[in-house]
Amino acid sequence: MKIIIVGATGTMGKHLASAFEKEHEVIKAAPKSGDIQVDITSTASIENMYKQAGPFDALISTAGPTYVGPWNGLTDYEFRKGIEGKMMGQINLVLIGQHYIKPKGSFTLITGALTHEPQLNFANASAANGAVEGFVRAAAIELDKGIRINAVSPTVIENSPQYFPFFPGDIPVTMQQLEYGFRKSVFGANTGQIIKP
Amino acid sequence: MKIIIVGATGTMGKHLASAFEKEHEVIKAAPKSGDIQVDITSTASIENMYKQAGPFDALISTAGPTYVGPWNGLTDYEFRKGIEGKMMGQINLVLIGQHYIKPKGSFTLITGALTHEPQLNFANASAANGAVEGFVRAAAIELDKGIRINAVSPTVIENSPQYFPFFPGDIPVTMQQLEYGFRKSVFGANTGQIIKP
Repeated sequence: MKIIIVGATGTMGKHLASAFEKEHEVIKAAPKSGDIQVDITSTASIENMYKQAGPFDALISTAGPTYVGPWNGLTDYEFRKGIEGKMMGQINLVLIGQHYIKPKGSFTLITGALTHEPQLNFANASAANGAVEGFVRAAAIELDKGIRINAVSPTVIENSPQYFPFFPGDIPVTMQQLEYGFRKSVFGANTGQIIKP
Repeated sequence: MKIIIVGATGTMGKHLASAFEKEHEVIKAAPKSGDIQVDITSTASIENMYKQAGPFDALISTAGPTYVGPWNGLTDYEFRKGIEGKMMGQINLVLIGQHYIKPKGSFTLITGALTHEPQLNFANASAANGAVEGFVRAAAIELDKGIRINAVSPTVIENSPQYFPFFPGDIPVTMQQLEYGFRKSVFGANTGQIIKP
């Protein structure tokens, strides 16, 4: 299977690339390194990535920039970070990628527990996640040729201890649990699902 | 109670204004008529609306422009209609309005069943709704001075028969059910809730 991982140099992306490249062709995409450079806030850059990659079986995105910071500093301006990044960045990966993906291929996006379990400082991520999850359910009934789409929605992950203080009471998701969430989407048959690893 | 209704000239807004003005001071806001003109895609226009209205007890929004149309015509460009309208229009009503609302006041936004029950042609609304619902839950734990926030999430409403064919199998929500959903938010004590009327 030919799998594109967007965000391949991040904490999640590195683990997934390492896990999947044992048995599959993995194309690593990231802003400044990897096999293909991509800026997901630019539709032209996304289009260019798909042209370079050629037809593929699965697109995994672990790329989700959002604004993190105190509520009293949150205005329309800060909010745009999550809109252009985690929300439209990922939505455009699908709207554009559907023209390059093989029949029966799959898209797997990243959201997070903040959709339904908010934490202080993360309102932008809650909104971006909610948007992506709504989109995933809608896209699942629109995509044709057997193309599937799901999202993986973890809480804080074990390899990002710097975030632990922001998620009191949340048991960190292990990298293996996260990986298996993506495995369920990529190698399973479900579509329109929000997978909690 | 002093209640601002944004979208007061629309199908829902008219009904709510008529229902609530019997017992409350209702300020009708709309793009081109009403007591105050407001363009919710402009933060300056929103700020101006609140300055004209003065301190208030409740903000109701029934304003939710989104792109409706076939999936194969959906690109980043069309998607922006829902981002600027139903999503950021409403989110900015809160981010700005929190500085004008009275203590113990409430914000009530509009989302819709499409968040979790997608229909063909409405992916933009599913995403915008999901974003607003995630934001509502996050804002509820951030807002201070007892200020509350909820969303009302109906399926197709009885007074919009032109949409019936797009929502097969959905029993239309009556205007009274819709009104009571807003009543629960405005006159109740809950916060962070997605109210299904």
